[in-house]
Amino acid sequence: MPDLSRRTLIAGTAVAATGAVLPSLAGLSPSLAAAPLSGRQNAGWYRYKVGDFEVTVVSDGGNLNTLADTYVRNASRDEVNAALAADFLPPDELTHTYTPVVVNTGKRLVAIDTGLGPAMFAKSKGQVGQHHANLKAAGIDAKTIDVVVISHFHGDHINGLLDADGQPAFPNAEIMVPEAEWAFWADETNVSKVPPAAKGNFGNVKRVFSGLGKHVSQYKSDDEVVPGINAMATPGHTPGHTSHIVASGKDSVVIQADVTAGAASIFLRNPDWQFMFDAIPDLAVKSRRKLYDMAATERMLVQGYHFPFPSVGHIARQGEGYRFVPAPWRPTL
Amino acid sequence: MPDLSRRTLIAGTAVAATGAVLPSLAGLSPSLAAAPLSGRQNAGWYRYKVGDFEVTVVSDGGNLNTLADTYVRNASRDEVNAALAADFLPPDELTHTYTPVVVNTGKRLVAIDTGLGPAMFAKSKGQVGQHHANLKAAGIDAKTIDVVVISHFHGDHINGLLDADGQPAFPNAEIMVPEAEWAFWADETNVSKVPPAAKGNFGNVKRVFSGLGKHVSQYKSDDEVVPGINAMATPGHTPGHTSHIVASGKDSVVIQADVTAGAASIFLRNPDWQFMFDAIPDLAVKSRRKLYDMAATERMLVQGYHFPFPSVGHIARQGEGYRFVPAPWRPTL
Repeated sequence: MPDLSRRTLIAGTAVAATGAVLPSLAGLSPSLAAAPLSGRQNAGWYRYKVGDFEVTVVSDGGNLNTLADTYVRNASRDEVNAALAADFLPPDELTHTYTPVVVNTGKRLVAIDTGLGPAMFAKSKGQVGQHHANLKAAGIDAKTIDVVVISHFHGDHINGLLDADGQPAFPNAEIMVPEAEWAFWADETNVSKVPPAAKGNFGNVKRVFSGLGKHVSQYKSDDEVVPGINAMATPGHTPGHTSHIVASGKDSVVIQADVTAGAASIFLRNPDWQFMFDAIPDLAVKSRRKLYDMAATERMLVQGYHFPFPSVGHIARQGEGYRFVPAPWRPTL
Repeated sequence: MPDLSRRTLIAGTAVAATGAVLPSLAGLSPSLAAAPLSGRQNAGWYRYKVGDFEVTVVSDGGNLNTLADTYVRNASRDEVNAALAADFLPPDELTHTYTPVVVNTGKRLVAIDTGLGPAMFAKSKGQVGQHHANLKAAGIDAKTIDVVVISHFHGDHINGLLDADGQPAFPNAEIMVPEAEWAFWADETNVSKVPPAAKGNFGNVKRVFSGLGKHVSQYKSDDEVVPGINAMATPGHTPGHTSHIVASGKDSVVIQADVTAGAASIFLRNPDWQFMFDAIPDLAVKSRRKLYDMAATERMLVQGYHFPFPSVGHIARQGEGYRFVPAPWRPTL
């Protein structure tokens, strides 16, 4: 044990106290090269256990959008800005994040939703389309995915089914889609039923699924889609919008998809607000209130596609609405 | 453009609707090997900009402790459990996380606090002592750190100054410590002034600093320790406990260290609670209320050593206390 007496420590104090600028710092920097700025962010994946299952959250990235006047149909720009400020977010802009998950049940490797697609990575200068790169970082080979479960047919959930060359990105996977969603988007006469911002989606659905034909099957809104993963109808955001309950042993998590979409926190805070992409606004509000009442009362763990990464936590009641309480990050599994 | 007619989609629907279990799944799994469970968590680092500076949050991990009856001096076990439940945390146990940061000012690479030390990695089976491994994952070589700034002399902040062999872990760095902290822990007659749980700390301080002699300098509680990083006295948790304000351009973040320590969220919610390791409880409460009143009013970004990783966000008022609002994870820098 080295000798560090009280005397030495006190002598040190006396020396340091002689100058306002510590003398030892003055001669420091010339001998050390400044490390360059990194510019690099950590890979966006995070893993947690649900009973015996492993859930891996695999971000597709996020992008910043200007707040459109129609972003919330039944709230003014000032009201939206006030909601953003209450969450310490800047006004007049919105960060949208995209967060698919992969569930390993021990028997099946199941992806739920797929992000905006690898083709968007270069187009967005790396902001989004990160899902497939983050899968790799998480040690998941897309070829080993057995099943891809789709929540609904918006492009930020289905476009990642195709790789940058338009080929199946999960070549060995069965693609499972909600029956009601398939029926709705297959009928182009429904174009009159969706909000203006969603009209282009009919063509995109056709584009994506035409390349996947034989791999696609449909599930009903109360099916057990894979052992341990049950569908749960949460319609409104789209007509066939579906959430999923992942359960193993006594644990479970609700993969809510877009029960709140967009800048999710403002719709949690104001659950009656109608998001510009909600196809059936009243029904979206009803599904939202129903799920969050249940989640708050039963203290359910919720994974939200548009919640900030890693996008898992609980729903607490707050005023007339709710707030998201992120689960603490676990440094080990 | 491939041919995906409405007819094809509807045919698909009809097929899927014939069985409760989707036929396409029945024959699936035999041909695909189940991917093994990973068991691996992402590396605990996260980066954000403060003006021109880069702040890299570099976790040291976390561990689970049983709730001691004396954990909060002036609250009962039931009250503590109620506070945990309000944050959706389980009763009778506490997760403690440890979160040093590294600031690259473009001219200096500055570590603030160091974790429990690499020697703890093996001892804890990887739960804690992760800081040096996470530094590497973040692309930071400990040899390039110019300055290590210490907030206070508890073992979870200073033990990482030494590597697993007891040698300096930041061999080229100047170690800067609060003058008041140095003076207090150098005088072993002060042992009567600290809570029972902290008495062993005198020996540990001696052990750690005795190996670092000439690299150690002291700073006053209002010094600019490095250009862009200012000390700010927040005493109470220990007599010389010091926080730091990192500022560049119009941006800043308060590195609060242990203004709330332990399971931080319960002390945010109940700022008058006295943590078992707070050396001067009344002063700790005073510093806490002062900093959080300022942070909430001025909407300051706060980085908390014992907040859940990545431990950066804002302080909102809630009832008689506060709550932590994590800053959304940015998938790119």
